[in-house]
Amino acid sequence: MKTLGYAAQRADAPLAPFAFDRRALRPNDVAMEILYSGVCHSDLHQARNDWGWTTYPIVPGHEIVGRVIEVGAEVAHFRVGDHVAVGCMVDSCQSCDQCLQGEEQLCRDGNTGTYNSPDRITGELTRGGYSKHLVVREEFVLRVPDGLDLSRTAPLLCAGITTYSPLRTWGIGPGSRVGVIGLGGLGHMAVKLAVGLGADVTVMSRSIDKAADALALGADRLLVSTDEAAMAASASTFDLIIDTVPVRHALDPYLPLLDVDGTLVIVGQIGPMEGTNTVPLLLGRRRIAGSPIGGIAETQEMLDFCAKKGILPDCEMIRMDQINDAFERMARADVRYRFVIDMASLTL
Amino acid sequence: MKTLGYAAQRADAPLAPFAFDRRALRPNDVAMEILYSGVCHSDLHQARNDWGWTTYPIVPGHEIVGRVIEVGAEVAHFRVGDHVAVGCMVDSCQSCDQCLQGEEQLCRDGNTGTYNSPDRITGELTRGGYSKHLVVREEFVLRVPDGLDLSRTAPLLCAGITTYSPLRTWGIGPGSRVGVIGLGGLGHMAVKLAVGLGADVTVMSRSIDKAADALALGADRLLVSTDEAAMAASASTFDLIIDTVPVRHALDPYLPLLDVDGTLVIVGQIGPMEGTNTVPLLLGRRRIAGSPIGGIAETQEMLDFCAKKGILPDCEMIRMDQINDAFERMARADVRYRFVIDMASLTL
Repeated sequence: MKTLGYAAQRADAPLAPFAFDRRALRPNDVAMEILYSGVCHSDLHQARNDWGWTTYPIVPGHEIVGRVIEVGAEVAHFRVGDHVAVGCMVDSCQSCDQCLQGEEQLCRDGNTGTYNSPDRITGELTRGGYSKHLVVREEFVLRVPDGLDLSRTAPLLCAGITTYSPLRTWGIGPGSRVGVIGLGGLGHMAVKLAVGLGADVTVMSRSIDKAADALALGADRLLVSTDEAAMAASASTFDLIIDTVPVRHALDPYLPLLDVDGTLVIVGQIGPMEGTNTVPLLLGRRRIAGSPIGGIAETQEMLDFCAKKGILPDCEMIRMDQINDAFERMARADVRYRFVIDMASLTL
Repeated sequence: MKTLGYAAQRADAPLAPFAFDRRALRPNDVAMEILYSGVCHSDLHQARNDWGWTTYPIVPGHEIVGRVIEVGAEVAHFRVGDHVAVGCMVDSCQSCDQCLQGEEQLCRDGNTGTYNSPDRITGELTRGGYSKHLVVREEFVLRVPDGLDLSRTAPLLCAGITTYSPLRTWGIGPGSRVGVIGLGGLGHMAVKLAVGLGADVTVMSRSIDKAADALALGADRLLVSTDEAAMAASASTFDLIIDTVPVRHALDPYLPLLDVDGTLVIVGQIGPMEGTNTVPLLLGRRRIAGSPIGGIAETQEMLDFCAKKGILPDCEMIRMDQINDAFERMARADVRYRFVIDMASLTL
């Protein structure tokens, strides 16, 4: 299938139109017309090869919402016309213990990324959602529940599940005390989802400037991390802190905020972190963890939960040809809180 | 009650005989003659004020085994002649949520250390087990079960419970895969206790030299942490790694060894730790935690477990007047694996 996307040809090149072929449908494949594609900070990192594993040309995009246009002969759960979604993975081994328990993101053989990842059968590089069409095996296609605004659903597929999964892993519900560090694409979803789960939610920020934003998102309060008295008064009052900061930073200011057995879970920074002092870990049996996206079943659960609760990201819609400006604005955190590309703006 | 101990008068002075008074018994107090006192690395740290919180003179010692010689009017559970033990704590608030659930080590008001800690009633500094007698409130006195060799029991009160508690917190039992980093006082107890709980146990060491020791302690194997191929082959194969290394070090080599949702728990180093790379945390939902000693009920459980399983530390018995040499040998890890002071060697 001929399609059109936006690709980077090298690390220092802007994204530009790029014509390519999607594979012919395998029996278990679903083909979709992409309607909306979210813009994740990791798209920018990979387009610029910040992590050193990019192969060019690269078509980014792993927050994908579309409409089914064709299904393979063995596809059981999707029909032409269905509204569907695809996130960060498009395949996994489907046979290891992790896959069998619905944790494909933790596949022992490594999951296949939606872009810049070798297809498990042909070895060809996958290409992502900054394009008109996508072909994905049925097991990695999500159903968009009725009632979810299609134009704002895409960011749930990465920012949403990346913050929902730790909330579920650590058993957050009514009465839980959740902190959120960083108020970007991930952070603002962490706030909305934790509030939706019934938790008491505190946004942690270096300045009071974000207080109105935090409250508008549903948080109960903002804690200014540079206010030593306020931080001391908040010691041992959190069950879970979701750390969405995407750059190297210090954890020491936040660890004493955790209650006994509390966890600070890192979902933003991929790479080196500052060293910590072990005293707050030892004295409160506190924990530091990481968490990657979530499994397919949990992602579907999250979409259903968002539909039921009316939870959607705050988005700014852009045209495909605005992506390079959007990357620059995203790099300086100038977006509330997620860019979504209207793929109708890209014509074949 | 007049007694005699060994105290440091200042950070750079050796321990030397020191006469002092134990308090008159309160109604809920137990008085004991100390028979054996274990030598913990933290005794040395505090005698030398390495952590900056020492008040002199200091009488160290928080691995204490003795015989009851007198009880207060309200003491219900101990009688003269009983063999008893005291660990790192001698008091706590007894009313917070942590104390009420038997986690006195996590007391919201801070527990009272066995030495160098202000008594909750008089404010006088507590003095530890390097002495002939001790007076402790009943709630912090452990019973030494019949069948446990008194001369080797003392190290269980710190080295034992510090490693037993995380094994229990993280649910270690038959089939669990446990790693132990460092083979000193804590590490050798971690091995014996994990083996006793039915786990498969691997000692991690920088050199193959400790292989025979590891196997002699009951470990199933030694993993050489400088052998890159062996480390790579052991990726994702541990449920829990107990890190007993008492100095600043890197965690990065060990994190990939944890299986999904596995935890590396720090019990040795008190202070700054090297920074880690978040990638293994994120990709395996791995965790880093700390753990302090254990509660009184759990300490009693550990003593009973050791009596039932015949688990005891490997000790080297010394006289009280050998303590300064023992400190020097301990500082260079020249002990297998714990010094115990025979308090009969100290006469009033």
